[in-house]
Amino acid sequence: MSNSLNIGIAGLGTVGASVVKLLQDHADLLTARCGRPVNVAAVSARSRNKDRGVDISQLRWHDDPMDMTRDADIDVVVELIGGEDGVAKALAENALQAGKSFVTANKALLAHHGTALARIAESNGSQLSYEAAVAGGIPIVKAIREGLAGNSLSRVYGILNGTCNYILSVMRDTGRDFADVLEEAQKMGYAEADPAFDIDGVDAAHKLAILTSLAFGCPVDFGNVHVEGVRDVSALDIEYAEELGYRIKLLAITNKTENGVEQRVHPCMVPEGTPIAHVDGVFNAVVAEGDFVGQTVYEGQGAGAGPTASAVVADLVDIACGRRTHAFGIPVEDFGPPQPAAMSQHQGAYYLRFMVQDRPGVLADIASVLRDEEVSIESLLQRARSPEDPVPVVMITHETQEDRMSRAVSAIGALNAVLSKPTLIRIEHL
Amino acid sequence: MSNSLNIGIAGLGTVGASVVKLLQDHADLLTARCGRPVNVAAVSARSRNKDRGVDISQLRWHDDPMDMTRDADIDVVVELIGGEDGVAKALAENALQAGKSFVTANKALLAHHGTALARIAESNGSQLSYEAAVAGGIPIVKAIREGLAGNSLSRVYGILNGTCNYILSVMRDTGRDFADVLEEAQKMGYAEADPAFDIDGVDAAHKLAILTSLAFGCPVDFGNVHVEGVRDVSALDIEYAEELGYRIKLLAITNKTENGVEQRVHPCMVPEGTPIAHVDGVFNAVVAEGDFVGQTVYEGQGAGAGPTASAVVADLVDIACGRRTHAFGIPVEDFGPPQPAAMSQHQGAYYLRFMVQDRPGVLADIASVLRDEEVSIESLLQRARSPEDPVPVVMITHETQEDRMSRAVSAIGALNAVLSKPTLIRIEHL
Repeated sequence: MSNSLNIGIAGLGTVGASVVKLLQDHADLLTARCGRPVNVAAVSARSRNKDRGVDISQLRWHDDPMDMTRDADIDVVVELIGGEDGVAKALAENALQAGKSFVTANKALLAHHGTALARIAESNGSQLSYEAAVAGGIPIVKAIREGLAGNSLSRVYGILNGTCNYILSVMRDTGRDFADVLEEAQKMGYAEADPAFDIDGVDAAHKLAILTSLAFGCPVDFGNVHVEGVRDVSALDIEYAEELGYRIKLLAITNKTENGVEQRVHPCMVPEGTPIAHVDGVFNAVVAEGDFVGQTVYEGQGAGAGPTASAVVADLVDIACGRRTHAFGIPVEDFGPPQPAAMSQHQGAYYLRFMVQDRPGVLADIASVLRDEEVSIESLLQRARSPEDPVPVVMITHETQEDRMSRAVSAIGALNAVLSKPTLIRIEHL
Repeated sequence: MSNSLNIGIAGLGTVGASVVKLLQDHADLLTARCGRPVNVAAVSARSRNKDRGVDISQLRWHDDPMDMTRDADIDVVVELIGGEDGVAKALAENALQAGKSFVTANKALLAHHGTALARIAESNGSQLSYEAAVAGGIPIVKAIREGLAGNSLSRVYGILNGTCNYILSVMRDTGRDFADVLEEAQKMGYAEADPAFDIDGVDAAHKLAILTSLAFGCPVDFGNVHVEGVRDVSALDIEYAEELGYRIKLLAITNKTENGVEQRVHPCMVPEGTPIAHVDGVFNAVVAEGDFVGQTVYEGQGAGAGPTASAVVADLVDIACGRRTHAFGIPVEDFGPPQPAAMSQHQGAYYLRFMVQDRPGVLADIASVLRDEEVSIESLLQRARSPEDPVPVVMITHETQEDRMSRAVSAIGALNAVLSKPTLIRIEHL
């Protein structure tokens, strides 16, 4: 086994245990695919004796994962601890500086420090790999970095958070409200006890920042991602979306515009006939659009021990085979400058819902605010309810600019006859 | 440019011209991605002076493409001529024997000679790459070979022929018959003047044979692909499929069973709720299922100059970056034996349609044949028509074995009251 690839795994949660299991179960297959064994040389975790469903008794144990970065026998450090700073960051820096490969599933780490880590990797001739950090089992990092390398990409977007997609799917299927479905998702283990990171869109934004750098060859720029989560999506809007031929999805979108690169995570109305409209439950999907290839779509499980382990091992196989890549497709020194487009300049169509008093002149007031901002209406729905209830006025606008739309919605929200905060959901032409 | 990757392109049809255009348009981008220029050093085609929309006046011209395999300045031969034998095969053999990389979009060549060519590549330390040969712009070869390399795959299937998918999609949308839609597709350029290769399933079978070898690490075994095309799919069956919650797609499927590896191309009923049911028009899609990753889905344009050029250049980028792979994921010497499963042993559910005389006892006769073959019926549809017309009897069976089903269908077809050849469409559980 002198030519084996020796890896050290930091973190033995469900993903870490699954990586160990995969490497054990498929040892022969991987040796054939790599031409050499991929060998777990050492592991590190908080507790040595916890039952993880895999046998780690024969593996070298480190109480301090940092020891693995100093171990000459270890070729690759696999980081499955998580967190944007602390141990994960120190492990990455030390492993890469020591000329070791560093493989991680840590999207927060890369969203915050991706460019800096890529630079350390390049200076030291080491490999930084992170297939597992974006969309779990879907080999989307490889697809964009290598499979579509002949293209200039114009837009990459997707469903990058399974928790949000699960909640929105159940809301649509059952007509139930957000809070109710979230509670159930928490009980079933599809949402964390503290769900904010997922449902407020931060997790998807981390992944998007990574995809943007890969797609457009620019620094990872998490700070300029516009982020909105799914807390405000209501059963009523899902119902209207259906009626209008749309589904509501939390999309993460990065696209080139004449103003620069937009990065945004927010609920979207997507047309019923598009592939992404049918990606339900905990599945993730990514769409990448290139000038020669056109539209390509990738779907799979975005999280979970098995899919994440599959992605980690794909990186290990590349390393074992000597297949090297720049972390974000091109050398950091060739990165263009970040060119964040202001969200206020975003161009798009919008779904609006206002809850109004059922009295003469309300629609005229709303329409005149929109006219003043030069927003034109493509379609409008207003249905009678019982006279004492607020009436929903629902409209789809033609394409306009975000700042005009924001001003109009604020002004409409301030009208006396408008009884609650207006709802605005962007429509994405896919 | 001393370190440039120098390529020779044989064949300047629409794909060849698109490869030249891509390499010209994205020269700077590719240099950044590869760390060196990717340079078209020479071209060869039938006619030198044809207008192809790209400038080839500065490129070295060879009347005989074989000269490129003898040209020490050329690192990679790109074959875009086509055909399973003749020039394409000789080019492949000579280029690989000369230690050059060989990149091709030629599925027929690989389906017939893939194993032999992979062996030549390995003996000579040369690279055989063919991303463009399967599913055009979708980077599915890379996904299976590298992205899912941590998995043992159990099944790979997909829509691999855009012509058939286009015809079936239009038939479903319009209710029109096969012959009528084929004629229109030919006029629109979506089907060839001689459409047999596509509509009889041969093109999809070529691609499937390649995917099987990649997925399961066995020789390319085109001879054992069970092939049926779409000529017999009728508007009536599409209508019934719809009613029963299915869509009819021409699928190419390779899966491991207890009897060996099944490779089959035939019309399938796929459940309405599955991703592949919604892949319409000229789009292709591939689903790959692995033990750790679960189900992954890939969609994109399966043909056309741009998508195919994108795939060719992805291979060139890998070569320029020094990223090497075995043609089919593992060395030929590690291939398991081919283990073709007999189609007669196939297990599955079936859609059956019989056109019968409307008289007492017919259903009893049909049912007793099925009972004798131990085929049980899951659901049955029979609707009254005008008394003088044949009545369609439509049924979905529970899972059974192909040879039982074949015998039963033959016996039923021989009944006096059964007025035309029975229709059988396999149902695929996805």
